[in-house]
Order: sequence, then C-alpha cells, then structure tokens
Amino acid sequence: MTRGKKKQLHLNLFLRNTGHHEASWRHPRSRPDGVIDVRYYQRLAQTAERGKLDSLFLADSYGLPPTMQFLVQQALEPFTLLSALAMVTSRIGLIGTASTTYNEPYHVARKFVSLDHISGGRAGWNIVTSTGNATAFNFGAEPLPDHTDRYRRADEFLAVVQALWDSWEEDAIVGDKASGLYVDPAKLHEISHAGEHFHVRGPLNLPRAPQGQPVLVQAGASETGRAFASRHAEAIFTAQNTLADGQRFYADVKGRMRKLGRDPEAAKILPGLCPIIGDTPAEAQDKERELNELTQPAYGVYRLSNLLKMDLGGYPLDGPLPYQELAHNAEINSQKARHQLYLDLARRENLTIRELILRTATSRGHYSITGTPVEIADEMERWMREGAADGFNLMPPCFPTELDAFVDKVVPELQNRDLFRTDYEGETLREHYGLERPARAAAVAGTGGRAAVSAQ
Amino acid sequence: MTRGKKKQLHLNLFLRNTGHHEASWRHPRSRPDGVIDVRYYQRLAQTAERGKLDSLFLADSYGLPPTMQFLVQQALEPFTLLSALAMVTSRIGLIGTASTTYNEPYHVARKFVSLDHISGGRAGWNIVTSTGNATAFNFGAEPLPDHTDRYRRADEFLAVVQALWDSWEEDAIVGDKASGLYVDPAKLHEISHAGEHFHVRGPLNLPRAPQGQPVLVQAGASETGRAFASRHAEAIFTAQNTLADGQRFYADVKGRMRKLGRDPEAAKILPGLCPIIGDTPAEAQDKERELNELTQPAYGVYRLSNLLKMDLGGYPLDGPLPYQELAHNAEINSQKARHQLYLDLARRENLTIRELILRTATSRGHYSITGTPVEIADEMERWMREGAADGFNLMPPCFPTELDAFVDKVVPELQNRDLFRTDYEGETLREHYGLERPARAAAVAGTGGRAAVSAQ
Ligand SMILES: Cc1cc2nc3c(=O)[nH]c(=O)nc-3n(C[C@H](O)[C@H](O)[C@H](O)COP(=O)(O)O)c2cc1C
Ligand SMILES: Cc1cc2nc3c(=O)[nH]c(=O)nc-3n(C[C@H](O)[C@H](O)[C@H](O)COP(=O)(O)O)c2cc1C
Repeated sequence: MTRGKKKQLHLNLFLRNTGHHEASWRHPRSRPDGVIDVRYYQRLAQTAERGKLDSLFLADSYGLPPTMQFLVQQALEPFTLLSALAMVTSRIGLIGTASTTYNEPYHVARKFVSLDHISGGRAGWNIVTSTGNATAFNFGAEPLPDHTDRYRRADEFLAVVQALWDSWEEDAIVGDKASGLYVDPAKLHEISHAGEHFHVRGPLNLPRAPQGQPVLVQAGASETGRAFASRHAEAIFTAQNTLADGQRFYADVKGRMRKLGRDPEAAKILPGLCPIIGDTPAEAQDKERELNELTQPAYGVYRLSNLLKMDLGGYPLDGPLPYQELAHNAEINSQKARHQLYLDLARRENLTIRELILRTATSRGHYSITGTPVEIADEMERWMREGAADGFNLMPPCFPTELDAFVDKVVPELQNRDLFRTDYEGETLREHYGLERPARAAAVAGTGGRAAVSAQ
Repeated sequence: MTRGKKKQLHLNLFLRNTGHHEASWRHPRSRPDGVIDVRYYQRLAQTAERGKLDSLFLADSYGLPPTMQFLVQQALEPFTLLSALAMVTSRIGLIGTASTTYNEPYHVARKFVSLDHISGGRAGWNIVTSTGNATAFNFGAEPLPDHTDRYRRADEFLAVVQALWDSWEEDAIVGDKASGLYVDPAKLHEISHAGEHFHVRGPLNLPRAPQGQPVLVQAGASETGRAFASRHAEAIFTAQNTLADGQRFYADVKGRMRKLGRDPEAAKILPGLCPIIGDTPAEAQDKERELNELTQPAYGVYRLSNLLKMDLGGYPLDGPLPYQELAHNAEINSQKARHQLYLDLARRENLTIRELILRTATSRGHYSITGTPVEIADEMERWMREGAADGFNLMPPCFPTELDAFVDKVVPELQNRDLFRTDYEGETLREHYGLERPARAAAVAGTGGRAAVSAQ
C-alpha cells in the first residue's frame, strides 16, 4: 500500500473462458471458440490493462468433470498462457495457479521464476491443494488425499519453493568476461532439503526472480486453509456473500496475521465480485435474467449434488433442500467453506432448489451485484471502508462484454472517487499491490556457498 | 517432405544461452545478461524465422552442474519461453524438451497441447529421459534410475501422453448455443490407463491439438534409445562427427523404421552442426581460434572427467588420455554414445587431453565446420546426398553473430542450390517437416464415449 496516501482498491481480473456465469457460453455475444484462442485472452488482458487493474488470474485444475455437455470447462494451461500474455501486455500482474498436491516443487519454483523473468516481475502464484477426484485419478489410483494431508504437503512444498527461490543471491552473477568468472560459487546455495514429502538439493537453475520472489496468493477458507493463508499469502481470494460475512473473514485473517507478527497490510484480501452492469437498474436486471434463462437445470442439479455430496435428482426443483438428509459440513473433504456458504444462503433466504441453483449460477456463490456503475462502485467502496475488503477479485459474468463495461464504466467511477489508480505507478506485481520485495532468507541450508570446482 | 519435389534440407536452430561454444559468453560481442531476457530470444527467433528455418529448439534439464563459475548454464524454462516466443513469431516451429523421468504424463500432455493451440500448430516435444544426478537429486533421494528403467518408463509415459492427446475427437465440440449442447459426450474418451508406472483416467482438459499431435523429437543414441526413436520419433537429433559415422547412424535408424513398417520419410534425421563462418577460410579459422583461446582448461578437465567418469585432474594436459584406466563404454549409464564418440575421436586423431578438450569445446562433440558459406553448404549438401542427414540441428557457436551469419550467408547459398525453401509453404511444424497429421487412435480405452450426465 502506498503509505501516506488515501487507501485505494486493488483489483484482480479472474479470467475464465466465456465468463463466470455458467451459461455465458450460450449468450449471443459470447465466443466459446475463443477459449482456446490466445488472441481472445490477449484482448481481455489488454482491456484489463487499459483499466489499470493490478493483475489477472487463471484458476486451474488437472482434470475434466463429466459435465462437458453443458458448458465450457477446458482451459489453456496457465504457465503457457500467462507467458504468452506477458508478451502482449507490459504492466498487469500475471497470477497462475499451481497445485502443491500434484506437482514437484522444483518445477513449480522454476516455472514461476521463469515467468517472472519473462514478464519483468509480474508473476504471482495462486497456491492450491486441488479439489476433486477428476484431478486425482489423473495422477494415480488414489483419490484426493484428505484435507489435512494436502495442507501438510503444501507447507513443505512452499518451504522448498521459497528456499529454491532464495538459492541464488541477488548478485551471484559476476559475468567477468576478462577473468572468466561467470558466477561467484559462494553466492549459489544448495538447499539440501530432506523432509517428509520431498528431497531437493538445489540450487535452482535460474537466477533470483526480478521480484525477489513471485507474489504468493491463496484462497484458504477452512481453519487450516486460513492458517496457511495468514502465514504466507500476500493476496487472498475469498468467496463472501454478504458484507457481514466479508467483515468476519477480513477481521479473522488480519487478526491471525497480527498474532503471527505480520503487518496486516502485507496481505490484500480480495473477495470475489461478479458485477452485472446496466446503465439503469432495469437494464442490469434484464441482463441477469437473460443469462439465467440460458442455464440448464440438469447441470444445476448435478453441480449442487456434487457440492452437497448428495444426489438431488429425485427432489422437486421448486421445493426446499432436503436439509435432514444432507451431509454435515464436518464430513466434507473438499470445498468445505463453499458447502457452508451454499447452505447458509439457502437457509437465510429460504430458497428452493431451483432458486439456489440460479443464485449460484452467476459466480458459484461469490458475491454478485446487479446494478448501475454507481451502485456497484458504492458497494465496492462500502466493503472497503467497512472492513471487508482491500479490493476485489473481479468475476465478470460474460466476456468480453461485461469486462468492457466494468473498465469503461465502473473503473472511471472508482477513479473519480479516488478509490482506484488512474495509472500504474510501479512496474511489478508487488508494486501494484504495495507489497515489499522479500529479502533473501539468510541461511539457506546452513552451508555457505556451493563448493567450487577447483581450478587447476 | 514435399512429394514430387526435389529433396530439401530441414533446419532446426538449437537455441542455447550465449551460444554452443562453451566460451561464447566471454566473446566481446556476446550478451551473457541476455540469457534470461526474453527479448534476446525474441531477436534470435525472429532471425531464424527470417531464415525460414523449420523450427527452433530448447534443450532442458532440472538441475545445475557445479560449474557455474566457468560458464552460463541457467536457462529459462522451455514451456514459458516457447509460449512467449509463439507470440512474436508466426511460422517457425517451437520444440521444447520434457523428461519422462521427472514429470507426470498428464502435465506434459497438456502443456504441449496448450502450446500447440497458442502457437497455431507449431509445438514439438523433444523426449528425453534425463542425464545426471544434478537433476535426480532435485526429485528425491535416489540417483538417476538406470538406462533401461528410464526407457521403460519413457515407453509407458509416451503411450499415456498419446492416448490423452487422442482423448478428444476432432469434432467433439458441438457448441450449439440454441440447444445448450457444448460437447458431444460420446466424443470425449477416458483413457483408463493402469500400468507399471502410471494410473491416468483422462480425458485431457484441452481439445485436440491443431496438429492432431505435437511433433515427437528424440535423440536416442544407445541401442535402446535408437529403438525408441525408430518407433516413435518424427525428428531425430544426433551427434555425428564424420560423414561415415553419420551414414551408419542414418542407415541404421532408417533400416529400423522400415523393419517396423514405418515410412523412412516419417522421421527426419538431423545431426548437430556447428558452423563457424568466415568470408575466407582464414577469417573462419581466426574466429575459431579466438573462441578457443577463451576456454578455461580447469573447466575442460572437469567436463571431460565427468563424461569419462574418471578424474583427469592429475594427468598432463599435453599428454594422451590414460586409455588403460578409463571405464569401458558398457559401464556408462548416462551419455553412453557421447562417451564412445569422444573416445573414438581422441583415438582416431591421436589427440592430447588439451586437444580433445578444445575439439569438444565448440559443440560438445557435435560436427563442427570452420569455413566459408560455400564450404559449409558443400558439406551440408554432401551429408544429405550421401545418406547421412535429412537436415541439420544448427548449433551456432555464438549468438547472435553466428546465427546472423548463417541466415545471411549460408541460407542464401543453400537456396541458390535449391536445397532449402525460400519461403514457408505450410503453417504448422508438421507441414514444415513434411510430416503427416496423425489420425486419432480408434479405440482409446476401448469404451465408447464418456458417460453423459443424465438430463432430467
Ligand atoms: C477465487 C478462488 C479461486 C480458486 N481457484 C482454485 C483453483 O484454481 N484450483 C483449485 O484447486 N482450487 C481453487 N480454489 C479453491 C481454494 O484454493 C481453496 O481450496 C478453497 O477456497 C477452500 O479452502 P480450503 O482449502 O481451506 O478448504 C479457489 C478458491 C477461490 C475462492
Ligand atoms: C542435440 C541433442 C539434444 C539433447 N537434448 C537433451 C536435453 O535437453 N535434455 C536431456 O536430458 N538430454 C538431451 N539429450 C540427450 C538425449 O536425449 C539422449 O539421452 C542421448 O542422445 C543419449 O542417448 P541414449 O538416451 O539412447 O543413451 C540431447 C541429445 C542431443 C544429441
């Protein structure tokens, strides 16, 4: 955060095929064929950069759910797509997802450093532990490990990655053509990690990242997940449906950070926000209705059944959820917080199954506002001023139209209120988010430098 | 190959930091700081594209040898770098290395398909099984698995990757906005692979690659390696020092292909070639001398000791190799063929240790020609006409200067002889190499399509 200046919002664009509304691909103006066309993403990224957004973000998983008949779910791979976008943008941050459950730390450490070099310091890592067996069964015969085990592995994984990121001192490269000394061997460090899940010797085969370390992003919602995010994250995604829930989450995480001795400004909390924008309230509502009419009940039932871990196929769509028969939150291994959020929403507003499906079709339970640019800016301002957000994870229902509308109509409104930058002030993702450049951990592996090959 | 037309050469550019000569970074005109600067590679890629080269190629490993004091060995990661280059080039093929020993097939399958989509059908995979413990110890406590085990895993790995590549039928996407049918579930296939090393259910989370499958490249030199390459590869890199050796290798591999029922044209054999170019023979020799004078004997001894698996530190540089004490080729687990090549070279030309070091400083044992554009074109033509090559893997000793010289002086000479294209005729890497677009394997997993989620 820019000290001594008025607090401003941080905005991340969550890129996702045709948009966050599950029926967006059916919208007359959507381009479902664009979802594997890099030029489609180029146009979206450039629009976001025109809007001076802090960053864009790609979620990821390593499997395909069995619902491809209903909607677009394939996705270009984040490292390849973000590197491509690095070449056609110059400022916007590039946040990619990598799972600690189905990767090796050496590969992940290196790919982010490579992206950070390629983009000139714009890389960020959304650290996830994966959800669901559609991914698990592409990496062995075992189902998804349980939540605790996933986070244990994540802890060790991150420690290894950070040690690898620190394995080159800032000024390790001497590059003296005359004497022939390329690297000072004393400034390259093996990490000699030997832990429960990983043995990694190091050093990394790339020099220190321009940002020191790429930015760490996380979306822990469970107890374990929040603890992880509070310890490590520098930006936190979260799904919060009401201002009150948002405030509770914000206070909880910032409180945890204080207890850990971290500056609460060192992590920006970014609730998801799906803006459905009209020049009048009626126009916005029409847009929402138009999208909702394109949803497919069979898919909604499948999606809800999957989250609630119970087949809802036999129940009347216009009746209530069968609360008595539903699994308790404690029994849920994946998407625990999302599970709770859906139940709370249905109970609070007394929704039928059909209504719950529609309410979550827009952005899978994230906060959604249907209104004018002024109304949307009002809500964003309120969430920030009333302690629920440092900014937002923008989830436009439809690309490119609703991103265009946000950049052309909501961003200027925020700028007029001095709530958002009118131009980038820094070059790197860290600078956009007002995050400090991390110092190198002093004693990687405890050894001094790496043994030099003796000159003879 | 373009049928009915005169046979022409295929040219791949082997990109490698400051150049293939180990002392290239010390050359007055080299830019060692460029090796992590994407704009440096952009300039090289665009030069290669100006020269109408078929492809460019990045080697890779996942570790750093302990010789960083002597030379540049860090490298941007291939998928991130190639995707970035895809955005600033339009025709040249993009070949990246991925090891089957230290990766998961799902990730590799997906990254290449993603690169193929991003580049419009220009992706190729150099399949390697890794060499050396600098990589191994970044992925566990075990040293490099032995050669046979690595190739067993490679066989299964490739089968899984190809099944994943075939898991989407060409026309699986219906994309009917009106009916709401996005994908025809009968055209998406689980692969249900359960093998010795991998369990992978599939399908991939990306539609079929523009090329059908990315191009397969390999550099097997051992018996097992050649067998693998003959079965699978569509382009083959190889290090051959003399025309006679090149002919033997060429005849051997093409013969194996015939025996396997493959069209010998279905794999292009590309020996490495390091061209040191001068307008006169004397100028070329001066260039070579200038580079050789920049080599560091301590590094040369280390490199040779490492390959020969014996510490040569105590032996006089100007004496012969201690042949009696050297390990036999049969005892070598990694770089077997390179080991044999060095021994043959030293014996054949009766080289001292210092001479062998210098002879292999240029391009690590690959064929090197020091001469005029005409002399170099003569040799290239001879290797092609006399059955040693379908083209070459170009390994310029210094970037960018020696690449510029090749494109500006040797390429026109080859074009004048009608040995090389004057413009691209196709769009994809397959088309440049004259390779057929692979048909989908009919029965992935034997099941029909994937079960659809029932509509209600
Ligand atoms: C905006 C947002 C994006 C997310 N992206 C991914 C993702 O790309 N891949 C993934 O496996 N999980 C993703 N998640 C899930 C989180 O990583 C996390 O698992 C989830 O919020 C539940 O928290 P928990 O892990 O503490 O139970 C995302 C969550 C949110 C809120
Ligand atoms: C031009 C060329 C490039 C190669 N690139 C790599 C590489 O990037 N990574 C790697 O591990 N091995 C690489 N290799 C080694 C080969 O994959 C192969 O292991 C080697 O030629 C020895 O053959 P063998 O595996 O049959 O013993 C390369 C070899 C050649 C000739």
